[in-house]
Amino acid sequence: MNLISENKSFGGVHRRYQHASSATNCVMTFAVYLPPAALAGGKVPALYWLSGLTCTDENFMQKAGAQRVASELGIALICPDTSPRGDGVAVDPEGSLALGLGAGYYLNATQEPWRAHYQMFDYVAHELPALVEAQLPITSVRSISGHSMGGHGALIVAMKNPGRYRSLSAFAPICHPSAVSLGAASWGRRAFAALLGPDESTWHAYDAVELIAHLTERLPILLDQGSSDDALARLMPEALVAAAARVQHPLTLNMREGYDHAYYFVASFIESHLRYHAKALFAQGDER
Amino acid sequence: MNLISENKSFGGVHRRYQHASSATNCVMTFAVYLPPAALAGGKVPALYWLSGLTCTDENFMQKAGAQRVASELGIALICPDTSPRGDGVAVDPEGSLALGLGAGYYLNATQEPWRAHYQMFDYVAHELPALVEAQLPITSVRSISGHSMGGHGALIVAMKNPGRYRSLSAFAPICHPSAVSLGAASWGRRAFAALLGPDESTWHAYDAVELIAHLTERLPILLDQGSSDDALARLMPEALVAAAARVQHPLTLNMREGYDHAYYFVASFIESHLRYHAKALFAQGDER
Repeated sequence: MNLISENKSFGGVHRRYQHASSATNCVMTFAVYLPPAALAGGKVPALYWLSGLTCTDENFMQKAGAQRVASELGIALICPDTSPRGDGVAVDPEGSLALGLGAGYYLNATQEPWRAHYQMFDYVAHELPALVEAQLPITSVRSISGHSMGGHGALIVAMKNPGRYRSLSAFAPICHPSAVSLGAASWGRRAFAALLGPDESTWHAYDAVELIAHLTERLPILLDQGSSDDALARLMPEALVAAAARVQHPLTLNMREGYDHAYYFVASFIESHLRYHAKALFAQGDER
Repeated sequence: MNLISENKSFGGVHRRYQHASSATNCVMTFAVYLPPAALAGGKVPALYWLSGLTCTDENFMQKAGAQRVASELGIALICPDTSPRGDGVAVDPEGSLALGLGAGYYLNATQEPWRAHYQMFDYVAHELPALVEAQLPITSVRSISGHSMGGHGALIVAMKNPGRYRSLSAFAPICHPSAVSLGAASWGRRAFAALLGPDESTWHAYDAVELIAHLTERLPILLDQGSSDDALARLMPEALVAAAARVQHPLTLNMREGYDHAYYFVASFIESHLRYHAKALFAQGDER
């Protein structure tokens, strides 16, 4: 890991690292916030945050106001990038923001030209945690959250890795991407067809509404969603609520009156999510 | 004023406006955060925030985490841009980031080609407050703060307008710009020579270290400065501390061990500044 920048923040430290990733076969950048408790010789549990379309490792760290609360609670924040990047990494030939760079959907692509690098599922679920747990004062006690495409990522990564996360939440997640078809700006079917091919059964393996029916672990889901979010038709929280109800999967949806899809919405409610995750991260008796 | 965007945030609202400015003779953009108390039929006092080199109205609003505290305290935040912009607005022929667009130094330029638009002193001290106090639920009870070049701006705008501000603070301000000469990246002499001409006595009229000796109002100054700030030689807080001591001007300098010049530093300490300003803004008995 190469340290590329470091800033003191709320008594802890915000760092950005680059490293050669074997999962994505390129150099990946990620950010980590280490609270004061991690700089005093101890190890701390971590919240993994997955960001949305067009984001990098920086958006959440700069805009969410999360470091103040993470400092107090003594949890690390880990923010990967949203896709592979660099020479040879495929980009959307149509130039949309919904496929390609910044738009990896946290899945393992099987199709050309995407599969050489777009292996974000393996990267965020396995390679990145192994790396930071080996090289930083971070334990294997993990929670996961994210926003928009990253909320989708948090849902599928947790659902497909039972036992790996203590808690799961999401802000305005894309809940049912295999059903979302709105042309070139599709936050779902167009990208899934490119990355996974025409067989829609392969899409369902990365779709929270499809996955929730068949889980062995009933990890509760905490969702916050703005009622004035222009993207609601592409997010489909109602489909996830209905699917959860069918299998009695515990799910709390906080509809936030008047809030939209911006980071001001995330910032307004991040503290409540961080306190929710801290409760699970510091719970006794079920070290995993 | 044209509303160009609006986001609900911490129960209040973040808005960006554009308007034709008579001071700068171009269209200016600014941002305002209105706390819940301003949306319930009342008027609220305001903290004016001046940003640093290369910034716009957006940096502070997105990165400082100030809206959470402003919401609680019931104060508006007002963030102007850092320079005029648009067709016909002069840019630095050498292309530096320290003169021209994003680098107006909050002064009234007297030299060609700058003087047609670079009248930021009049804009932030007079035109913008008059506009928002007439058109938004904001009172004329004002405080002012800023970061880096904007910290310089806060200092000189308050010092040159006795009675207009209840309180004054700055993060890592450029304290003594007429003394700062470090080539094309100068945060002082090169820009001041361009904007104000060769007579250095005109520079002193916009230099806090020079101004502080001759003030009629002894408004206390609150400064926060990171001890690991790479820009310390261009900021010269020690010169302002010494100048204040000579005239017994009340000044508190919090040296923050290990912090640098980034917004993570501002975010780490903004709450203490906001509470300091709120105390002055809500003080009874000296309505101005």
